[in-house]
Formats: sequence, C-alpha cells, structure tokens
Amino acid sequence: MRILYIDPVGADACEHEMYDALLAVKGPDTALDLVALPVGRPRHLEYHSYEALIIPDITHIVLQEAPNYDGIVIGCFYDVGLREAREVSGTTPVTAPCQATTSIAAALGNSFSVLVTRSKCIPKMRENIHLYGQGDRLASMRSLELGVRELQLDHELTKERLLSEGRAAIEEDGAETLILGCTVEYGFYPTMQEALGVPVLDAAVAAIKQAEFLAEAAQRFGWQPSRLYGSEAPPAEEIATWGIYPGEAPIGLRLTEEERILA
Amino acid sequence: MRILYIDPVGADACEHEMYDALLAVKGPDTALDLVALPVGRPRHLEYHSYEALIIPDITHIVLQEAPNYDGIVIGCFYDVGLREAREVSGTTPVTAPCQATTSIAAALGNSFSVLVTRSKCIPKMRENIHLYGQGDRLASMRSLELGVRELQLDHELTKERLLSEGRAAIEEDGAETLILGCTVEYGFYPTMQEALGVPVLDAAVAAIKQAEFLAEAAQRFGWQPSRLYGSEAPPAEEIATWGIYPGEAPIGLRLTEEERILA
Amino acid sequence: MRILYIDPVGADACEHEMYDALLAVKGPDTALDLVALPVGRPRHLEYHSYEALIIPDITHIVLQEAPNYDGIVIGCFYDVGLREAREVSGTTPVTAPCQATTSIAAALGNSFSVLVTRSKCIPKMRENIHLYGQGDRLASMRSLELGVRELQLDHELTKERLLSEGRAAIEEDGAETLILGCTVEYGFYPTMQEALGVPVLDAAVAAIKQAEFLAEAAQRFGWQPSRLYGSEAPPAEEIATWGIYPGEAPIGLRLTEEERILA
Amino acid sequence: MRILYIDPVGADACEHEMYDALLAVKGPDTALDLVALPVGRPRHLEYHSYEALIIPDITHIVLQEAPNYDGIVIGCFYDVGLREAREVSGTTPVTAPCQATTSIAAALGNSFSVLVTRSKCIPKMRENIHLYGQGDRLASMRSLELGVRELQLDHELTKERLLSEGRAAIEEDGAETLILGCTVEYGFYPTMQEALGVPVLDAAVAAIKQAEFLAEAAQRFGWQPSRLYGSEAPPAEEIATWGIYPGEAPIGLRLTEEERILA
Amino acid sequence: MRILYIDPVGADACEHEMYDALLAVKGPDTALDLVALPVGRPRHLEYHSYEALIIPDITHIVLQEAPNYDGIVIGCFYDVGLREAREVSGTTPVTAPCQATTSIAAALGNSFSVLVTRSKCIPKMRENIHLYGQGDRLASMRSLELGVRELQLDHELTKERLLSEGRAAIEEDGAETLILGCTVEYGFYPTMQEALGVPVLDAAVAAIKQAEFLAEAAQRFGWQPSRLYGSEAPPAEEIATWGIYPGEAPIGLRLTEEERILA
Amino acid sequence: MRILYIDPVGADACEHEMYDALLAVKGPDTALDLVALPVGRPRHLEYHSYEALIIPDITHIVLQEAPNYDGIVIGCFYDVGLREAREVSGTTPVTAPCQATTSIAAALGNSFSVLVTRSKCIPKMRENIHLYGQGDRLASMRSLELGVRELQLDHELTKERLLSEGRAAIEEDGAETLILGCTVEYGFYPTMQEALGVPVLDAAVAAIKQAEFLAEAAQRFGWQPSRLYGSEAPPAEEIATWGIYPGEAPIGLRLTEEERILA
Repeated sequence: MRILYIDPVGADACEHEMYDALLAVKGPDTALDLVALPVGRPRHLEYHSYEALIIPDITHIVLQEAPNYDGIVIGCFYDVGLREAREVSGTTPVTAPCQATTSIAAALGNSFSVLVTRSKCIPKMRENIHLYGQGDRLASMRSLELGVRELQLDHELTKERLLSEGRAAIEEDGAETLILGCTVEYGFYPTMQEALGVPVLDAAVAAIKQAEFLAEAAQRFGWQPSRLYGSEAPPAEEIATWGIYPGEAPIGLRLTEEERILA
Repeated sequence: MRILYIDPVGADACEHEMYDALLAVKGPDTALDLVALPVGRPRHLEYHSYEALIIPDITHIVLQEAPNYDGIVIGCFYDVGLREAREVSGTTPVTAPCQATTSIAAALGNSFSVLVTRSKCIPKMRENIHLYGQGDRLASMRSLELGVRELQLDHELTKERLLSEGRAAIEEDGAETLILGCTVEYGFYPTMQEALGVPVLDAAVAAIKQAEFLAEAAQRFGWQPSRLYGSEAPPAEEIATWGIYPGEAPIGLRLTEEERILA
Repeated sequence: MRILYIDPVGADACEHEMYDALLAVKGPDTALDLVALPVGRPRHLEYHSYEALIIPDITHIVLQEAPNYDGIVIGCFYDVGLREAREVSGTTPVTAPCQATTSIAAALGNSFSVLVTRSKCIPKMRENIHLYGQGDRLASMRSLELGVRELQLDHELTKERLLSEGRAAIEEDGAETLILGCTVEYGFYPTMQEALGVPVLDAAVAAIKQAEFLAEAAQRFGWQPSRLYGSEAPPAEEIATWGIYPGEAPIGLRLTEEERILA
Repeated sequence: MRILYIDPVGADACEHEMYDALLAVKGPDTALDLVALPVGRPRHLEYHSYEALIIPDITHIVLQEAPNYDGIVIGCFYDVGLREAREVSGTTPVTAPCQATTSIAAALGNSFSVLVTRSKCIPKMRENIHLYGQGDRLASMRSLELGVRELQLDHELTKERLLSEGRAAIEEDGAETLILGCTVEYGFYPTMQEALGVPVLDAAVAAIKQAEFLAEAAQRFGWQPSRLYGSEAPPAEEIATWGIYPGEAPIGLRLTEEERILA
Repeated sequence: MRILYIDPVGADACEHEMYDALLAVKGPDTALDLVALPVGRPRHLEYHSYEALIIPDITHIVLQEAPNYDGIVIGCFYDVGLREAREVSGTTPVTAPCQATTSIAAALGNSFSVLVTRSKCIPKMRENIHLYGQGDRLASMRSLELGVRELQLDHELTKERLLSEGRAAIEEDGAETLILGCTVEYGFYPTMQEALGVPVLDAAVAAIKQAEFLAEAAQRFGWQPSRLYGSEAPPAEEIATWGIYPGEAPIGLRLTEEERILA
Repeated sequence: MRILYIDPVGADACEHEMYDALLAVKGPDTALDLVALPVGRPRHLEYHSYEALIIPDITHIVLQEAPNYDGIVIGCFYDVGLREAREVSGTTPVTAPCQATTSIAAALGNSFSVLVTRSKCIPKMRENIHLYGQGDRLASMRSLELGVRELQLDHELTKERLLSEGRAAIEEDGAETLILGCTVEYGFYPTMQEALGVPVLDAAVAAIKQAEFLAEAAQRFGWQPSRLYGSEAPPAEEIATWGIYPGEAPIGLRLTEEERILA
C-alpha cells in the first residue's frame, strides 16, 4: 500500500525527523513517502493567509500524485485544503489529522479535548470539529501558547505545557480523551498517556493510520471517493485547455524509504 | 490480531455463510472468530424488545472475551449494546456497523443514504446517526420493506429493491454514498456499486475493518478505550460479590478459522 | 387508575421505604403497585453493564403487566429500557424520571441543572436530555460524588451535598430550577426547595405523576402510544413461536396497597 | 383544583360550545372557568398583529386572576403571550396548547405532524416547536387551508381536510402521531383517531389536562414557577407607581360551572 | 430616506438626548424621526409583562407610519414586537438592535459577547440570538447588574461596569467583539473601543444603520419584505370591519429634525 | 467611500458588463473599482480545485489593496477565501455574496431558497449557509443545471430556468424569499421579482451594498474587524522575512470609474 504524507510547508531540516517518526508507525505493507513544499513556502501555517498560499500546492500535488498512491494525508491539523484535494484525488482517498483524530476519539470515549498551539487556531479548528459532527463531544480546546516552531525546541517546556493543559482538560473540562491539535506536537503522546491515564491521540500518527485504513477500503472493497454532486471532479479537458495546474507539482522535498535505505 | 465478531442472534445455519463472507475481507494478519448466541435467542432484532433480550448476552460475552481479543464487533446495524459492551471491554475497542459505516461515509462524500430493511428501523437508526454526529450528512433513510430474514431468501428480489431504493436515494435525495443498513444485506454491495457508480458500504465488512483499525491503534499506540467518567468500568469486586454475569457467557456457536481448517 | 412502578434493581429492604414515599404522592384515584426484580439482580445501576442485565427484565415485566395497568414507570434516572418497554406496552403509556422531570422543568423556568450521584452518570444522562430536546435548557450537570447506595445512609451528608451543589448550580451556572438526577435522592426535595427558593424536582415523584397524567390521557381520550413505524410492536405470534419471554416475568417483590393494608 | 381557560379572542357565541367541550374533559376535582376578551377584540388570531392586540389582555388577566386559580391555559396554538403571562402568574403555572401537545406527543411516538389552519401559521409555530426542543420529532406541518372561523362552519369539509392531510402526514411524512394545531379544531379528534389509527392530540384538551397536571404539582409538591433570573416577576411597587395594568382586567365573558348550573 | 426610530417606552425627558445621539450617526440623506409612547406607558422594558403592554403600540405605530417611512427601528434590545411589526409594515423593512448588532458582529469576528443590564434579560435575549442563527458565535452574556434607568445616572459607574465585564468577556470567554445589549447603554462604545481594542457595537446606532441599509435595498432594488406564507399581512378589510387599531396610533412624543431646527 | 470588487477569475471581456451593472447600484458617495485576476487563471470557479488556485490571489490582493479601500467584496457565491482575506484586511471589512444575501434575507422573510448553477455547488454552499447560522431558514437549494459560463449566453433559457426553479421553490418548498446563488446570475432579479412577487436577491448587488454598509460602520464608528484570537493578523515581519506575498498582487484587470470616464 502506497501512502503519501504531504507536509504542507516549505521544506526544511525538520522533515527528516518527522519522517522517521512516521515510518515507525506505518503498517508493515505500507510504503510511505513524504513530500514537502519548495523552500520559500511558509514554514508554519498558524495564519489562514499562510494556509492560502499552499492550498494550490496541495491540490496540485494531489492531482499529480493521486494515481501513484493508495491514500494521501494532508499533514496539518487545520485539515487545510481537504475539500479541494479530495475533489481531484480520483479513486484515492485523502484524509487529514482533525478528521482522523476526532473520528477515533469518538470510538474511545464520550468526550475529548484538543490541545492547540495558540488561541489563534481555535475558531477554525472548532468549526471543523463541528462540521465533522463531533461538536457535541468537544469538552474544550486549550491553548499551549506555544508557536508551531517552538514545539520541538525545548522539549521540557512543551511537555510541561502539554501535561498541565491536558490535566486541566481532564479535571476541569471533563475530557475522557485528549487530542494533540498540531502535527508538530509529535513524539509526546506516549509520555502523556502514561502520565495522564487517558488515550492521547497524535495528529500525524492518526492521519497515517486513517489513510491506510481508507486505502485498504478503497482497494479491496471499491470504497473509493464518490464522484457525484458536490464530489464531482473537474473535467480534465477544461484543466488542459485552460492550462491550469501546469507542469510539475511544487514538491520541494521527497523522502522515500528507498532513498533512506540508500542513504 | 484477534478480532471477535458477535452475531447477536440465536445461532442457526446462516452464520457459516456470513463467516465465509467475513473471512474473505479480514486483514492478512487477522484471526477472526465469530460467535452467535444460543439457540432460543431471537433470530432477528427488528424489534427493540428483541434487542433487549440479547443486550446482557453481548455484555457478558464482551466481559468474558475482551481479554482474548484485540477488537470486537457487534454485528447489528442498531449498534445494539454498544455503550454497555464498551464499558466492560477493558483495553479492547468495540465497534458496530452504524458507527463504522457512517464514519467511513464521511470520508468519501458529502452525504449518504441508508437502505434499511423496514420502516420500523428508521427512528432508532436515525437517532444513532445523529448521536454519532452524522445527521447533517444523512440524505435519507429508505426502507426495502423486506424483513431481515427475507434478505437472503430471494436474491433477485433483494437486489432489485436495493437497486431501486439506492437509485432513488441518489437521484431524488441527493445521496453521494450509500450505506446498507443491515448486516444481513451482505453480498450485494459489489453489484450495487457497479450498477450505481457510487460507493456502497456493507455494514458487516465496514465494522470488521473498523475493528481491525481500532485494534491496531490500541495495540501499537495505546489508544485504548478511555476509562474515565462515563467510560469508567464497573468494579470487578462488586460484580463478583453480587454474582452477576456468572459462569460462561452465553455463546451458542463459535466459528474459528482453525475449526474451519480442520473441518 | 392503576399505576405500576418498576424499581429496576434486585429487591432488598429499601423498596418499602420508597413505596411509602410514593404512596404519599399518588393521586386519590390511583392504585399504585411497586415491583422490584429478583434478589441477585444488580442493587444499583450506576454502570451501563448493570443496566444491561435488567433491560430484559423491564421489558418482560412490561410485556406481562401492561394489560393490568394504565400507566407504568421505570424507576431509574437513566430511563433505562424506556424504548424497549414502550414497544411492548400495548395501549399503556410508559414513562421514566428523566423524561418526566425535564418535561416539567420546561414549564417552570428557562433552565435547569441536574444533580447526579457520580460523574459516571453524566454522559448518558446528558445524551438523554438532548434526545428529549431539553439540551438548550440544561444549565449544568453536577455530581454529588456519592454512590446510589450511599444516598440514604447519612442523610446529613447527602443533604449537605445536595444543598451545596444545588446552590452552585443556581449561582454559578444560572439554573432556575433543579432536578434530582436519581430516584434514590428521594425525600430531600422539600428541604432543598425551602432552603434554595427554586423548584426542586424529585425524580420518582415526577415520574409517578407523569404516569398518572399519561394514563388518564390514554384512558379518557384514547391518546395511547402510537403503534406505527418505529413504535410498531413485535408480532405476538413470533414471540410465541420462538418461545422468547417465556413464563412469568422476573418479579422479585410486589408491593400493593392491599397487602400493605393487610399487613 | 381551579383552572382558568383564557380564550384570547373577543367574546362571541362560540365560547359556550367550546366551554361545554372543555367541561367534558376536565378532571373530577377541577373547577374550570373560561374567560374571553371583550367584544371588539380580534375574533381570531391568525395574524401576529392580531395577537399583538391581546398580549396585554392575557397578561392583565393572568396578573389579576392567578391568585384565584391553580392553573391557567392560554387557549391558542401560537401559545401567544406565554412568556409574558408566566412572568406575572406568581405561584400558578401557565401552559398553552403547543407546549402541551408536543410534550405529550413526545411520550407517545417518535414523530408527529401538526395540522394547521393555514400556511400563514407555519413559521411561528415551527419556531415554537423548535424552542420547546421538539423540532427533531416534527415530521411535517400541513395546512388545511381553512381559516380559524371556517373550522366549525362546515363540519364535513373540515373533517375531510383533517383526514386527508392527517393521512398524508402519516403515509408521506412518516408521522406516528398527529397534533391538531388550532384550539378551534375541537371535536374532531375521536373520529380521526378511529379512522387513522394513531393518537390525535386535541389542542385545547391537552392544554387543560397539562394545566391540571402542573397545578397539582405546584400545590402538592411546591413545584411552582421559578422566580429566578429570566423568570423574575416585576416589582409590584413599580407597577403600582406607574399605574400600569390599572383597574379590572379586560374580561368580556366569564363562564363558570355555577352559572351554568343556575342557567 | 426617511427612517423612524420607535423608542418603545413612555415619553420622558430622555428621548431628546438619545435623539441627539442618533442624529449624529444617521446618514447624510436620512431624515430621522423618533417617536415615543404616551406618558403612562412603562418607562423601561426589563420585564416581559412591560413589553406586553407596548407590543400593540408598536404594531399600531408601524401600521400607521410605515407608508411614511422607508425604514423603521424598534429601539429595544429585546427586539420586542419585531415579528408583529414586520407583518404590518407593507413595503417598509423593520429592524431592531439585537438582529442588527449580531448580524454586524458576524462580519467582524468569530465570536461576540453581549453585555446586558441585568441577568433577568439573558434567557429571552439568548433565545433571540439563537433564533437569528448566531448562537454558535455567542461567547457569553454578561450582566452589568444595573437597571436600564440607572445606566445614564452615574456615568462613571456604568463605564466601570462595562469595561470590567467587557474585559472579562474578552479574556475569560474568548469574545472577539462586544455588543452592548441595551439601547440605553448609548454613548459608551467609543471609550470602550479605545480601552479594550475590539469593536464594541452600540445597539441603537447599529439598528439605525441597518434600517438605512434595508431601506435603500427596498427602495432601489425592490428588496421589500416578503408577503408570502408566514409574512402575509392581515387583510385591511378585516381590520376595518372589526374596528381594531382604530384612530391615531399612540404616539406620545415625536421628534423631527424640522422641529429641532425650529426650536 | 472606496469599495473594491474582486472578480476572482481570470480577466476576460465579461468584467466590463458586470462592472456596468455594479456601477449602477453603488451608493452616490462610493468609488467602486473592480479587479479581476490575470489571464490564465480559471474562468469560473465551479470546482473547488479551481477555487484553490485563486485563494492566494484573493489574499494577496486584499493584503495589498486593503489600505486603499474602505470595503472589499469577493465576488463569488462560494465566498471563496473569505476567512483568509479577512485575516489580512487590516481595518477594512471584507464581505462576500453568500453572507451578504442570507443576512438580508433573514430580515425580509422567514425562509429563503437559493438557486444555484449546478448541483455541484450545493454541498459547500449549504455548509456555508449553516456556518452563517441561516440553515434553519433555508427552504431549499435548487439547481438550474446551467454552468456559470452559460448563464449569460442564452438569456431566455436562463430566465426560464430561474423562473421555473424559483416558482417551484416558492410553491413546493415554501420559500418566502429567493437568492440567486451565483454572481453571474446578474441582471435577472428585477424580472423575477415582478413575475414571482417575492424579493429576489442578486448576489453581487447584495455584496456591494453590504460592503458599503460595513465600510461606513468601520469608518464612522470604528467597527473595524476584530484582530483578536482567531482574527489575529499575521506578523508583517514574518511575511517579510519569509518573502511570501512578494511583489505586486496578481491583478489582471482593474476597472475604475476614472478610466471609464476617460475611455
């Protein structure tokens, strides 16, 4: 099974570390690739105007790569570009962390809280959670007040914030489950789980597993994305005539297991 | 991975056929067992008073078997006993067809319709769909007006009804995806998918795959059911003192791959 | 008017005290009987797996007794088995405390809080309140952190907890009305009402009165339960053929006014 | 128990017939009075600007009469003036037909339809039904396209419309229960019930019974209207100082059982 | 453009000050008149029974004056009588502060809080906000615990309360925007805006501007109130025959710019 | 007042005709400019992957032009890029047709229907309408089954479809008001209004007027967009450092009144 993880920010050194983390969780039959955007693209997506810049990139990558993959993940908890990417993914399912984690949380408990980086994120993420139908289960959204790019700088600080906000979510807000509301909060969930005694869902891990799940469902049972009504794909002819999405998709970095093996 | 499929009706000849169908869809690393209830239990669950009779059975089976399995499916689209079973499943996740199919449908299109056996089923199933947060995606519920036990009698009739109601759901109600709202509607989804051109989700297949997915998440990432607040399990001591759930769980039939191989 | 109160736990000494309390509130033309389940059944229902065990009992009792009564109460604030019991109650209406109290509260003020025994209860009760359409009026659910069986042990402690949580519900959560979220919180509402100055609805009392009300409506105006669609009853023939719900319903104790008079 | 039924239109000959109908349904211990407004007030309330005219009348009557009654009904399916009347009713509960019928319907089936006089009524009534939390149970609202004052003119025509719209509500919209959405649709529910086989709730009858129910709850258990927050009553002193609600409340006709006995 | 502002309380000296404030905000092409009710009408509307008294006045004034104006404002944050007034306004749009402010707030941020005079107001206002569809954006309602008539007595006190509750709404409840939930909280928004750094919407100002906006839309584009279904107007003939809304509308004070100029 | 209308498609001849239509509706003190995107951008936005391509363009244009304008309109009924554009608009309010029309419709009647070009559009537009809080007022969405670019080709055909779907929305779905769900359905509303007798809201006209309204509110009363929490703008420094949104915004055509006058 071939899964593509799109890290929708401009490539920098961090992807290697995240890729390692993702390789560690993929299924045994999964070939997992990671792509990031060209250098020069935003390095985090806390602002919607940063998201704006990379929605065409995500869409272009999905348009180009969907035939080569069985499942695709958009690696940002805003689930940025999910609707657009799904439209052009052909028979390949696309998922993203917020939909994946909240769907799992619904099977593990009555309620969940989401720990986000900054209060900036809350309104759009809350809106997504409501759109996914999980608003009634949302105990609270709590902010770490740490920027995305600070999360992996001082691990002790991040861990401390995650634990204190997670504990408050459980004790004050009644959360039965916790969700880490940013893919860059990776690496912390095992510690948190042990310390807090509730399931703690990692955004990127959940999305990878959800992608594998949907990929298998598509392959084996034909449960591919609907292409009716709102899910209708654009006509290839029109895209060609207009010359939109021309040339190579803007991929700044591609990590594959083979290259890793070679390296 | 060990998965248990509970067919929550009194055992009769049908389980073998269904078991074959389920073996065909399980994952390569999955050992799938099927249990049914003792003869004398209701043979279908169209009525809530029939469900009532087997909720303790399901709960008892899960209480007893959860330590032996990594994931459990309750095989009825009413998702009967799901809350009760989840309470006593320890570290093993439990799922059921309505939650499984609607969760998948949410990833495949904007809306879905459910094809149920009889109009009797609609209010409780609709309520469940709303509780799962998928009410906004529900285009319609359509009744085949065929009893559960008629579904596999005259395949041509069942197929015809499924196709005509499915087509109406698409054309009149705007469904982008279809869900088969009874586990006994098994065997028909590939034909329907080909004829109608939209994903058609089989209830039992979806639940098995969802169970495997949750089982892997529990095992590898520790994403086991929360045991906090509403998900708190009953104290084993109290159960013992009272002598409730005594003796062997009421299993009338157990199908395992080994016995099949031997047979 | 003949009303049956089902105390859905294994009979013990407590029923006599509760029966006295209920006799004190019944209408002048009401003959009120109380049944409890056989010894050996769970003695409280805080856990859903305990509820599971007695759902068939409730259903069996209602199936058997409905022809002898004009109204039936299921005496547990989880409203356990309400859907199942209603299906087999024929022309007799069935009610339960959560539906009864929230319906009355909606006529007495803009909002209410529910005081429950333990936080365990909150998710399922909240779900019921939403299903009954009263979610917008729910100011809060507050837990006494007292088990059901502790409620009548140390009356001072229980009263103190009820008053402090009730007062907090009013002052911090803005509740205009209070609901006692367990039938075993009986006996406290008059004191609370006097101390707090708002209506305090007793779960069992409210359910008895609601049952009388529905019974009169059924008798005099023919407003009996609908038997259409989701409310369709199971065919008696099928029940007989299958031999389900055989023999006597599992009644462990039956208190009637005549026996009291004799005693 | 003293119950007051306010017919919130200008008195004309019709009140006597309606009063007879209501006397036939009251409880044995109920003394039921009916008041109507002075001649010159609107004779029906199909338009909101007609309702506007009599909201002060209702409020004034309730302010004056509440101390003399144990329960009060506002006899119009718009539940006109209910919030205002409740504010000044002291310890006396007030109810109205839409709240009463939908609350009963919630205990009799999964869904209901409302048969209204004209499509004019639908938006405000639907809004009320949603505010009462019963929107999810509302199968449909269907209009007879008969004005309020035509309902009792040609009984055959009215019956025919009620039956045909009622049947359509059941068969096309899936209603399990029917509600007559105007107090002047009185007299028809028994025939409809017999013909259609589902409960058919009469607006005025339901409101009378609900008033008796709430009155008993208030008297015996102290479950009187909350007077906190949004339910706070205006200060008597301010009313007196300003001279608002001066003199006698605008009652144009008062029917009591004693006068009937004398007459 | 001719706009009518209805101050729906008995005229007293305050109207002049408020009229000055409104003249300062009207558009350059707007002729703004203000009417108040006759002396003897309630001087504030904190209680619903006070609102009751003036709903016919508002309706009568709109019935009479709508032909002379292009837009009408009902100047109370309860939006009292809005449905009734809209029914008889012919081609003239009518608006009111709660609908106007929440509609603007929806364009300025993700969430808002409303600062009301007393907790009495909260339930009805919250209900209106939900009916207008803005419930998801409502961060909180906070009470100043100052009566309407105290607001303009001690400006320092009022300002202090507005600032402290406004600050708490922002910091504790996450409000991005503030709404002043009473037309008599006029004059404070510029100071608050400067101090708190978020938009602070004045109730009366917003309603005047919304009225101008709707008036222009009606005049230039024919976007006048619908008169279909629930928006159907009462037949003039019936009003005449019955003699309802007779004579002059109850206007106790009329302020026009001409009279001001003359004075 | 300076208003910018962004036609978010690649410039072609059509903009001139639309610009004329918009000039005809702007306010007397409004200077209205129109910009379109460079040739090569998608020529319609029926597909979400076409929207994707121009979200950065819209954001860039708003980032660059907001200081020069008092109000901005994104001219597409998907309200594409509204969240992103609002983030970078500084003190300038931004609006779009779906939010503008549904907000006006809420003041004109109880319900509305939206006439869209193709069923493709319905799910995203319906989602937006729910997010704006107007879902309860949505009577129906009806598709003309005409592509955006066909709308102005055969005016008779378009008119006929608009009238027949509009009439069906009124008569079958109960709509009191109609909304034209595409800016390119311009020019038809007066005819429809006359033929159908209900308000028919033009998407682009409504958005222009809403922009003027918000612009005045921002200028005169300081009711500028909140910049707190989810509305926080990205730091200019970060944008500069990263070099994102470099150079001139991608404007392919700019129409101003001066150039028209000159031309």
